[in-house]
Amino acid sequence: MIPVDPQRFLDDLHHLRSFGASGVGKGVVRPAFSEADIAARDWLAGRMAEAGLMPAFDPVGSLFGLAEGPSLLLGSHSDSQPEGGWLDGALGVIAALEVARAAKEAGGPPLSVVSFQDEEGRFGVTTGSSIWGGNQALAEADTLTDAGGETFAAARARMAARAGDFVTPAQFTGFLEMHIEQGPVLDSSGDKIGVVEAIVGIRDMKITLTGQQNHAGTTPMALRRDAFQGMAAFSHRINDRFRNVVTPATVWTIGHVSLHPNASSIVPGRAVFSMQWRDGDTARLDRMEAIIRETAAEVAGEMGLELGFGPLLGLEPVAMDARLRGALEAGAEAEVPGGWRRMPSGALHDATNVARLMPVAMLFVPSIGGISHDFAEDTAEPDLVTGLRVLARAASALTG
Amino acid sequence: MIPVDPQRFLDDLHHLRSFGASGVGKGVVRPAFSEADIAARDWLAGRMAEAGLMPAFDPVGSLFGLAEGPSLLLGSHSDSQPEGGWLDGALGVIAALEVARAAKEAGGPPLSVVSFQDEEGRFGVTTGSSIWGGNQALAEADTLTDAGGETFAAARARMAARAGDFVTPAQFTGFLEMHIEQGPVLDSSGDKIGVVEAIVGIRDMKITLTGQQNHAGTTPMALRRDAFQGMAAFSHRINDRFRNVVTPATVWTIGHVSLHPNASSIVPGRAVFSMQWRDGDTARLDRMEAIIRETAAEVAGEMGLELGFGPLLGLEPVAMDARLRGALEAGAEAEVPGGWRRMPSGALHDATNVARLMPVAMLFVPSIGGISHDFAEDTAEPDLVTGLRVLARAASALTG
Repeated sequence: MIPVDPQRFLDDLHHLRSFGASGVGKGVVRPAFSEADIAARDWLAGRMAEAGLMPAFDPVGSLFGLAEGPSLLLGSHSDSQPEGGWLDGALGVIAALEVARAAKEAGGPPLSVVSFQDEEGRFGVTTGSSIWGGNQALAEADTLTDAGGETFAAARARMAARAGDFVTPAQFTGFLEMHIEQGPVLDSSGDKIGVVEAIVGIRDMKITLTGQQNHAGTTPMALRRDAFQGMAAFSHRINDRFRNVVTPATVWTIGHVSLHPNASSIVPGRAVFSMQWRDGDTARLDRMEAIIRETAAEVAGEMGLELGFGPLLGLEPVAMDARLRGALEAGAEAEVPGGWRRMPSGALHDATNVARLMPVAMLFVPSIGGISHDFAEDTAEPDLVTGLRVLARAASALTG
Repeated sequence: MIPVDPQRFLDDLHHLRSFGASGVGKGVVRPAFSEADIAARDWLAGRMAEAGLMPAFDPVGSLFGLAEGPSLLLGSHSDSQPEGGWLDGALGVIAALEVARAAKEAGGPPLSVVSFQDEEGRFGVTTGSSIWGGNQALAEADTLTDAGGETFAAARARMAARAGDFVTPAQFTGFLEMHIEQGPVLDSSGDKIGVVEAIVGIRDMKITLTGQQNHAGTTPMALRRDAFQGMAAFSHRINDRFRNVVTPATVWTIGHVSLHPNASSIVPGRAVFSMQWRDGDTARLDRMEAIIRETAAEVAGEMGLELGFGPLLGLEPVAMDARLRGALEAGAEAEVPGGWRRMPSGALHDATNVARLMPVAMLFVPSIGGISHDFAEDTAEPDLVTGLRVLARAASALTG
């Protein structure tokens, strides 16, 4: 097994948190292309170079630390949600760095490291790995905007001085991603490791309802075309319509809302909101999409609103590679015999995109209380180290 | 009758629009205490001085142009909504200026002019006249915040160099406010003038629902405490509960929504939204408030959310003074015989607050399409001049 150094791994993980450290607990504010995100990537590039890896930024800000010749790729992402925790993707990046560094010090095997950009979807959905994986064209991604109206093109221009070409995927023999679970399954069961069987698919679409902005005192209720009321009616009706279609594992979320002009004395003239849904079954994702489009059209028609759909972003469900997954399962059984489980990933990950290019597999460590994308996100340090060791065992086995 | 100059009135009205002119049509962006608002008030102070009136800013940024001795007060407000039209309160301020200026040139009667600050409620509800009228203490108002988190205290500090004491209300014999209707009644009926019988009461309250922010992929629907879903359920249920309580003239609005953290991949942990309701009957306003509080508590309880209510802002319904109203009715009948009507005001106005200090009355001119608080707000210029003449006739009659 590759002789990893748990303390060096934890020290680097805590140091990475210092970029964008914020909020209560171990909170982090490090969204893609923020000052903190770019500074963190510069520090990571330095650590890669010290470890004997060649740092390489691609045109969208994803950072690779390359071994020479063919290599196994390990990693995740170091950007955070607008309010995130210290682990999320950062854990997988630093674990990858430690395993690759320890392997290099031990004279092999050759392991490369990656921190993808904008996994958290400030602009799209897992934007950096989506473009690298060929799921989305760069020119198309460049037109995506964040909640404040900035384009992806403008954001990535801030890193242009560092950017080289896209890294050639053919040099990698596979991709292993370690991540926190971000859900309550491992924490409730007491298992220390989850080996992912498949990543659920996701669809994400902005919906715009446009009515008539007017004075909230002089416009009788019967004459209003109120975009907020349209959005609320849509949410109520979709919850009802989905009941006959979904499973207990299906989820859907309206997480982002922007009203215009957003003043208490004005009937809202426009509502733009996100509709996101996830499931392991492509056919179910399709049925849900049809219901969303029909229900929105129905509500808009009844309430005299104009309806617009943004581009449909998303990724299909992805099964993990049997050989890579087997290596993770063997590693888990060696570290915590009987104390691990197979499970689906309800969260989307960069591995979904990378699966278009090479075999991929993933492992999870427990999330305390199932909490993530929140300042309160955390995992016990011994559990982090267990994950590191399982990753090192699998990397050894796959390159031995 | 006071010999008003319609062209000078229209010229000044167009000039005032140049402060914050924006958007399509005759749009204006001149919220209270913005650069454009303060510049407009400085220009108005200059026009008042040229007209022989003494300009006086009070501690909250309301601008008076004072005649000597006891006088009738005319005016409205010159701040706008975040996106407003060129008329709204600006019309009543410039009409007041023209009538007072023409009266001064003609050797009397003594008429004073006012432009109240923050009628549009960036911070509270008709903030400037509310404080002057004694509806709200200055120290209490200072803690109000706008949507961006700025306090009223910080905003008014930007005008501190201009500020004198509060103007003594006892010098005024009454208050006449001219305004656009901001609704569809006059435009549909073809009447040229509306004489207001009463201003409806208004209540406005922020409601906060707090749940658990979490990952939108890994948190099963059954375990979510989603603040957006709480808000949507509240809106749906309140619409239903109000049906047995309201009249066709009652209105209620959720116009401002702020989700936290407002990202498409995160279950919203917090929703803060405005709930505003208006009616001519105090008892009905009270019943609606009780239903709002009960329904919010019910939804929060069912969905595992914490519930918070902000301070209740608002104003009681106000009847217009019979003598002042009679002067407006006589003026309207003289200008447009049979072409005017009595009506309630569904919109709130500074006159509501001033009624605590002196007799008040109001007149409306038509709003094209009933549109206001929108760049598209407009009124035909002959209708504006008709309003000016009715105001001048009433001011003459009341001071003759």
